[in-house]
Amino acid sequence: MALGFQSAKLPDDEPGPLEKFVALLLGPRLANREQKGRKIGALEGVPAMGLDGLSSSAYGPEAALTVLMPLGAASLFWIGWIMAPIVALLLILFASYWQTIRAYPGNGGAYIVSRENLGTHASLLAAAALMIDYVLNVAVGISAGVGALVSAVPKLHAHILALCLGILLVVTVANLRGTLDAGRLFALPTYLFVASFAVILGIGVFETVVSGGHPRPVVPPPQLPRAVEAASVWLLLRAFASGCTAMTGVEAVSNGMTAFRDPPVKYGHRTLTVIVVILGALLIGIACLARSYRIGAMDQSQPGYRSVLSQLASAVVGNGVFYYVAIASLLCVLCLSANTSFVDFPRLCRTVAADAFLPKAFAIAGRRLVYSVGILYLALASGLLLFAYGGITDRLIPLFAIGAFLTFTLSQTGMVLHWRRVRRSPAGATERAVRAHEWINTVGALTTAAALVVIVIAKFKEGAWITVVAIPAVVILLKTIHGYYDRLASQVRDTRPLQLRDSRPPIVLVVMGNWNKITDKALDMALSLSPDVIGVHLDQLAGPEEEEHDAELRAQWVRYVEEPVRAAGLEPPRLVILRAQHRAIHEPVLKLVRELGTKRGGRRIAVLIPEMVRQHWYEHLLHTYHARQLHSRLLACGDSGLMIVDVPWRAEEGEAPPHRHLG
Amino acid sequence: MALGFQSAKLPDDEPGPLEKFVALLLGPRLANREQKGRKIGALEGVPAMGLDGLSSSAYGPEAALTVLMPLGAASLFWIGWIMAPIVALLLILFASYWQTIRAYPGNGGAYIVSRENLGTHASLLAAAALMIDYVLNVAVGISAGVGALVSAVPKLHAHILALCLGILLVVTVANLRGTLDAGRLFALPTYLFVASFAVILGIGVFETVVSGGHPRPVVPPPQLPRAVEAASVWLLLRAFASGCTAMTGVEAVSNGMTAFRDPPVKYGHRTLTVIVVILGALLIGIACLARSYRIGAMDQSQPGYRSVLSQLASAVVGNGVFYYVAIASLLCVLCLSANTSFVDFPRLCRTVAADAFLPKAFAIAGRRLVYSVGILYLALASGLLLFAYGGITDRLIPLFAIGAFLTFTLSQTGMVLHWRRVRRSPAGATERAVRAHEWINTVGALTTAAALVVIVIAKFKEGAWITVVAIPAVVILLKTIHGYYDRLASQVRDTRPLQLRDSRPPIVLVVMGNWNKITDKALDMALSLSPDVIGVHLDQLAGPEEEEHDAELRAQWVRYVEEPVRAAGLEPPRLVILRAQHRAIHEPVLKLVRELGTKRGGRRIAVLIPEMVRQHWYEHLLHTYHARQLHSRLLACGDSGLMIVDVPWRAEEGEAPPHRHLG
Repeated sequence: MALGFQSAKLPDDEPGPLEKFVALLLGPRLANREQKGRKIGALEGVPAMGLDGLSSSAYGPEAALTVLMPLGAASLFWIGWIMAPIVALLLILFASYWQTIRAYPGNGGAYIVSRENLGTHASLLAAAALMIDYVLNVAVGISAGVGALVSAVPKLHAHILALCLGILLVVTVANLRGTLDAGRLFALPTYLFVASFAVILGIGVFETVVSGGHPRPVVPPPQLPRAVEAASVWLLLRAFASGCTAMTGVEAVSNGMTAFRDPPVKYGHRTLTVIVVILGALLIGIACLARSYRIGAMDQSQPGYRSVLSQLASAVVGNGVFYYVAIASLLCVLCLSANTSFVDFPRLCRTVAADAFLPKAFAIAGRRLVYSVGILYLALASGLLLFAYGGITDRLIPLFAIGAFLTFTLSQTGMVLHWRRVRRSPAGATERAVRAHEWINTVGALTTAAALVVIVIAKFKEGAWITVVAIPAVVILLKTIHGYYDRLASQVRDTRPLQLRDSRPPIVLVVMGNWNKITDKALDMALSLSPDVIGVHLDQLAGPEEEEHDAELRAQWVRYVEEPVRAAGLEPPRLVILRAQHRAIHEPVLKLVRELGTKRGGRRIAVLIPEMVRQHWYEHLLHTYHARQLHSRLLACGDSGLMIVDVPWRAEEGEAPPHRHLG
Repeated sequence: MALGFQSAKLPDDEPGPLEKFVALLLGPRLANREQKGRKIGALEGVPAMGLDGLSSSAYGPEAALTVLMPLGAASLFWIGWIMAPIVALLLILFASYWQTIRAYPGNGGAYIVSRENLGTHASLLAAAALMIDYVLNVAVGISAGVGALVSAVPKLHAHILALCLGILLVVTVANLRGTLDAGRLFALPTYLFVASFAVILGIGVFETVVSGGHPRPVVPPPQLPRAVEAASVWLLLRAFASGCTAMTGVEAVSNGMTAFRDPPVKYGHRTLTVIVVILGALLIGIACLARSYRIGAMDQSQPGYRSVLSQLASAVVGNGVFYYVAIASLLCVLCLSANTSFVDFPRLCRTVAADAFLPKAFAIAGRRLVYSVGILYLALASGLLLFAYGGITDRLIPLFAIGAFLTFTLSQTGMVLHWRRVRRSPAGATERAVRAHEWINTVGALTTAAALVVIVIAKFKEGAWITVVAIPAVVILLKTIHGYYDRLASQVRDTRPLQLRDSRPPIVLVVMGNWNKITDKALDMALSLSPDVIGVHLDQLAGPEEEEHDAELRAQWVRYVEEPVRAAGLEPPRLVILRAQHRAIHEPVLKLVRELGTKRGGRRIAVLIPEMVRQHWYEHLLHTYHARQLHSRLLACGDSGLMIVDVPWRAEEGEAPPHRHLG
């Protein structure tokens, strides 16, 4: 009997004000079967997963040019030689992730690829690197965007932290609504950014070609600084390492495959292609135009600083309306680059949690079928980082690319082993195609590994060492969590059939106040569970000054309980009055439970607790928490043979004739 | 069988770190029978209840002199004519509270006296006035003390709010430890203050007498301002109304009678006498010495301001070490005057809550046998006031005396009616003694009523109107609470004996995951409650991507459950697999409960929920809250025939041979 209810909403489940607010903010609760309609295509995929990658174009070339600044005008020569290998690397990554997506259409993330091909250790390394990277990406992305915004509108300078946290809130809420909603919401700025810079780069390239390589800028960029150094291998390597940040975000599609609608491989490929093509075009265009328009990086710490893209836009189209639209969309894309993390981090955590390396809550789909715990955790962690650094997270940037390139390397290496296995399996594809695949991933693995080494060395002192320490620490944490679940699983494992140990009904202790309808109902319920019922009343629960009515209670007991039960031909329940010396209801009850257990030869005992149901918020203030305290203390301290029976009681029950039954 | 356990501490109740910290801060949990040893005598009574009254001496005369400032030197003439009726009124109050304490030794507060003699309305008026007064007293007392401290040590000016909240915290913790501890802790500054000013006033009076009324001040006080006004009745009335604040705190002893050890009347009388004698002596002494040393009030808003007591101390003994000791003890007494509220407010709330006009929690004795909820509520309310006003609550002072004088009047009027009733009862005391009592209380009632009228008129515009509005609002709140409890009592009232409605055992639904030791134990427990057991498994509880193992589960069920139960000659339980479309465990379970209820002719249903007991804090992070959510939603939405059975499961149970029974 597998019941699939049409609507699981219960008629008397009238939503409270909090639930109404949440529904307004996040949208209605979605059913599992609505999952299909919540999947995304390439149109939403690019804004959802691509913002990290696309926004890289804004800071990758700039970062490389900044390192090259001491070279003066020569930097314009070298930027070409830096960006060429970066774009080549991008293409290699594109080819290899294209293959990864096809090989692992369910989830092609570095974690899964490493787990399947390299084993648990490597997969945990990938998971830890990705997790740290995602948290950093949120903090750094938002603060970089806000930094750019503030340098455009200096009035906002006093509100950096508030702006950061505000954007974090918007991105968090959008993603709690679901990846589809976030993708749709952020589509406008994304495509506006792409369109504006397509126009700018197009005009710029046209002008360059027409003018024979020396276009006249509309607004001339500032003079390049004088050279103070000659080019050295070390400087160029550092520029390369800095420029490599342009590539972070390319792995996003493979990590978020579960977000795509059927067939996921098709939409994954489409999204990946759009992202890489746009990113590649932007990188090449920026490098070329920087050269022809003679635009270099400026010192951020000096007043009058302008970013490379801003100089480039005003050089090509001047400082008109179009310039402002382009820069505004760029700011949006920078601020929202955090969204990629919000799409991938919860999905990664879900997979890791399903393997019992993270708490189970990460694997539970929330009201909008996204993994809300992961989203909230990411928001909290990056919010704390932003708060701790006051919204200025420059110092975190060096920590940043390591995780990405470590994951690239692991995932590529995993793919190499994957193809090798495919090649060896008898049902493999044609040998040649597989060899080609293997070759692409090998090149990918080697180049990203080389880039990783360069980045670690170049940035070690600036803070990369923190990542080098943090990743193993996270791995240890994940393993500890797994150890806990492992131990638990072995504790609950049961290979024997059901043991019927004691078929006698339990002794039922009914915790009660005076004689009233609640006690009446509780005793009636208790007698249907077992013929062996004891009423337990506690004296002085409120303190030594509470009045006691023991004699009255005993008289009530005889008249209202013993007589009718005896008349029904049953053994009448006993009444026990205990004194709560420490005003803790559970202590005397537990003591009684233990005494009875010893006396009655290990009989099971059930403690029946009548509980008043609170239907209005103010009732929580008007009642004591004795029932709930007793319940939770019995749970915590009770012996293994103890049951706790809650009998809810509602105010209406006192008004209607008692016990309308179900139905 | 009334069991009085020698020690209710359970052996496996190892205190957690939080409990250890609380025990360190507040002292060990006290048993009800330790109540006697926690009562106080007069020695602790004066610091516990008298600080409000004694500190009044610091601001009463000063307040009157401030109003008289426009009279210039003539203010020294009139201060005598203002203080004389105030001291007389104090003596009348002393006499009448002396009688009240004897007549109501259990609790002689205005609330009880009004309730017994004037009826519910008057008693609620008294309760509301007292409650507001106590909260104001804490905020105003602490901020006045800190204000004086800051004017003595101007460096502290930036920390006013922190100092206020710090003192509030100290007083709160001291009172949570118990009235006895607070009385002992605050005894040193109290008696130091009394001793210092006894010496100062003694020397001052001696010098005055020796010098024939014109002593030479050691440090001459500043020149009195020039007169700008002549004395008018209105000015003198306002001075009287301001000076009357010197009397607040006299009622404290009668409100806190339950704190005293046996015989309470003796210790109450002693405490009251000590407080009134010291207060009276201080008031008379200050008025006399202000006259002979020619000390007037100074403008607080001007730099160089010094309080009357500070001027007086340096005039008499100079600015030596003794001066600093006296002023330091004065500051302590001012800061700690809030303590009186902390002793009386929780006791008042306890009495009002016992009459069901306040939530029941106010009537429960806490770990140290004081009413912790009242103490915490008072701390919270006054803390919010301090916070809202930034620790400067001058504007609240006009609101202050009204509550006190309204209570005085109600309590005195109640006593008049009390004596009248005693006089009429045949077993009354000798007519003459009673008439004398009645006369004293009549004078008290009339004079305090007159003072109340003067205060309300004189201070109405300055803010007294707020009190005039707030008191009825609190009365309405108290009545609303009472109405709720009244309705509840009539709903649970049961005048019929126990109804045995349905003796059939309930259908037991066992909510379960896969086959494991937890399910094993739960089914075994369920079969001891009823032969009619159904296993309920929920699919897709974590979302649409959760893997389902329905076939495996059904196979397990047949092998591990049905076969052994059938072999034992019982009807084997069925397995029902439900789909949790909305990932809310309670919805399908509730729906099943309702269907079964209809189908099975109103049979009762018990839902059995196995719950993993969390023994370490980190386990809370590692488990989902499904069991607890199901429990609380079933409580909230279940029908009246529903029971909820919790079966705790501990990790150790998986390691030991299953089900060591109790004992």
